[in-house]
Amino acid sequence: MKKIEAIIREERLEPVRKALELAGFAGLTVTEVSGRGKQKGVPLQWRVGEYRVEFLPKLKLEMICHDDDCQVAVDAIVKAARTGRIGDGKIFIMPVEQVVRIRTGETGSEAV
Amino acid sequence: MKKIEAIIREERLEPVRKALELAGFAGLTVTEVSGRGKQKGVPLQWRVGEYRVEFLPKLKLEMICHDDDCQVAVDAIVKAARTGRIGDGKIFIMPVEQVVRIRTGETGSEAV
Amino acid sequence: MKKIEAIIREERLEPVRKALELAGFAGLTVTEVSGRGKQKGVPLQWRVGEYRVEFLPKLKLEMICHDDDCQVAVDAIVKAARTGRIGDGKIFIMPVEQVVRIRTGETGSEAV
Ligand SMILES: Nc1ncnc2c1ncn2[C@@H]1O[C@H](COP(=O)(O)OP(=O)(O)OP(=O)(O)O)[C@@H](O)[C@H]1O
Ligand SMILES: Nc1ncnc2c1ncn2[C@@H]1O[C@H](COP(=O)(O)OP(=O)(O)OP(=O)(O)O)[C@@H](O)[C@H]1O
Ligand SMILES: Nc1ncnc2c1ncn2[C@@H]1O[C@H](COP(=O)(O)OP(=O)(O)OP(=O)(O)O)[C@@H](O)[C@H]1O
Ligand SMILES: [Mg+2]
Ligand SMILES: [Mg+2]
Ligand SMILES: [Mg+2]
Repeated sequence: MKKIEAIIREERLEPVRKALELAGFAGLTVTEVSGRGKQKGVPLQWRVGEYRVEFLPKLKLEMICHDDDCQVAVDAIVKAARTGRIGDGKIFIMPVEQVVRIRTGETGSEAV
Repeated sequence: MKKIEAIIREERLEPVRKALELAGFAGLTVTEVSGRGKQKGVPLQWRVGEYRVEFLPKLKLEMICHDDDCQVAVDAIVKAARTGRIGDGKIFIMPVEQVVRIRTGETGSEAV
Repeated sequence: MKKIEAIIREERLEPVRKALELAGFAGLTVTEVSGRGKQKGVPLQWRVGEYRVEFLPKLKLEMICHDDDCQVAVDAIVKAARTGRIGDGKIFIMPVEQVVRIRTGETGSEAV
């Protein structure tokens, strides 16, 4: 199993959720985060000069999936989250050793 | 070392925290998240028809523990978080390569 | 690639951000969390007796970096986050298998 973590723009949540659902993925966890990328925040012009916003609001999506489904999910997220402008976000994939469904006690692949 | 991530109902935090404490686990990090599982949100009856809440508020617990303690912790969480109804949550276990206690600089097992 | 997760005091975010920037790290994701460590919360004296705050507000920093940069980043975080008092926080390092920059589709090392 894998964990896909995607940091995306807030306004791309709905398109990403729909794209994932269409691709067959239901389970998803969303967290409100603040972030900065390569450009280190955003410079804003203000009356008194330049001002830098160090962190911008983003959403973190977390999705556990089977190894074989990982690429399909990543492709769906990239396509639905992309605007082409800087700040579109990042995806990270990590190994997951075990999954448990609390209600049933199921583990492993069937618990995903 | 392992990282246990548990997505649970908000109202099960207190029972889970107590169960973990009883089992000897103190360190814990909690994040407010929104999520959906296999059932893809929750359908609600509303005057004008059916309405679907795509994401429900949940809590994410993160706990770093020694490899040998992992199963005991998972069992404690499952037992204290379960209500038997859909939406009880999920547990994910991931590998952790290094731990550092910032105050002392301790690393590895003694830093957990 | 690695993921560095650091739980720090809220008031150490600015020093840590600056230390990471000085060390050449720009990308960073921050989440508001609540946590407890070895001391299991904080006992407070109140008129009617002792009262225990189970969870304290903390910040979780997440940073993906190249394997070779990991130690430099951890050292920068430890130095900038430390006050010497209990509750300074913890750092966890996890393996990351893949990184994707959503805007460009770049993957792996160049996407970090
Ligand atoms: N190395 C990183 N570690 C952790 N989080 C990161 C990292 N890089 C980016 N992020 C997160 O992703 C969000 C969006 O990053 P962003 O899309 O600006 O990345 P980028 O590498 O600068 O790409 P671009 O050039 O397209 O802007 C950031 O606000 C931050 O939350
Ligand atoms: N595959 C997944 N990836 C990421 N988060 C998930 C996943 N599945 C569930 N979650 C998280 O766990 C929460 C609770 O999920 P839930 O208990 O409904 O899982 P389920 O598989 O539908 O099990 P049940 O049939 O018992 O409802 C969700 O709101 C979401 O935050
Ligand atoms: N084992 C753990 N698992 C998950 N989170 C932890 C763990 N230990 C600590 N944390 C997180 O780190 C925060 C700070 O912990 P803290 O610095 O008190 O750790 P500690 O081990 O008690 O060290 P110290 O003795 O210096 O206080 C906690 O509030 C919690 O969010
Ligand atoms: Mg950027
Ligand atoms: Mg469900
Ligand atoms: Mg402590």
